[in-house]
Amino acid sequence: MNKIEHIGIAVNSVKLAGDIYERLLNTTVYKTEDVTSEGVKTAFLQAGPNKIELLEATTPDSPIAKFIEKHGEGMHHIAFEVTDIEAEMARLKAEGFILLNDVPKQGADNKLVCFVHPKVTNGVLIELCQSI
Amino acid sequence: MNKIEHIGIAVNSVKLAGDIYERLLNTTVYKTEDVTSEGVKTAFLQAGPNKIELLEATTPDSPIAKFIEKHGEGMHHIAFEVTDIEAEMARLKAEGFILLNDVPKQGADNKLVCFVHPKVTNGVLIELCQSI
Repeated sequence: MNKIEHIGIAVNSVKLAGDIYERLLNTTVYKTEDVTSEGVKTAFLQAGPNKIELLEATTPDSPIAKFIEKHGEGMHHIAFEVTDIEAEMARLKAEGFILLNDVPKQGADNKLVCFVHPKVTNGVLIELCQSI
Repeated sequence: MNKIEHIGIAVNSVKLAGDIYERLLNTTVYKTEDVTSEGVKTAFLQAGPNKIELLEATTPDSPIAKFIEKHGEGMHHIAFEVTDIEAEMARLKAEGFILLNDVPKQGADNKLVCFVHPKVTNGVLIELCQSI
């Protein structure tokens, strides 16, 4: 894994949280994006080589809506940048990790992504992402 | 904020979680450290410019013990690297963030640290850290 590509944070409103994280990180939201397939609206901020991805649910059955219902706002996942997502998925599968998708899927920010089940990773939802 | 210095993950056992994260990240735990003042045992792994800090409670009243009791294992905090922690603390205070310590304190991994209350940051515990 090359680096932490981003940390995903589940929030009630990317507009309100964007204002807060702009002041926290002393920077500006440089991109917002709707990922309709996941039922989320996202906003991105940069911190050096890493990003913060704010995630707001846009549908009641969005994974983010369910997460907030259960846990409230907070850290949702850690995404690691990989160079070859299919090779990394095969390696993790062989190591006994549980992948939530069998083939890479299109994520936000022009990435191919795959999620790893938090059951095996101490409650942490892990995302692999490769730039397209 | 220069980068994500590390992500802190609360775990029941740094030994067991260390084995899992070594396989996940395809690397090895390069350091373990007891921070007796915080009642935690830590293990560090590197992912490019970033670190994963696994945290195990060593006392029943450790913040990590309380966190796991309430939430189970999982992501505990995001630490951002700063160059001048006192200047950054003053900036955040002026922006209305709530600092959990008034002066920087000694953290793990040879760092001066300060925590920001998660109430204002959408449920995310933020740490500032400056190398000593």
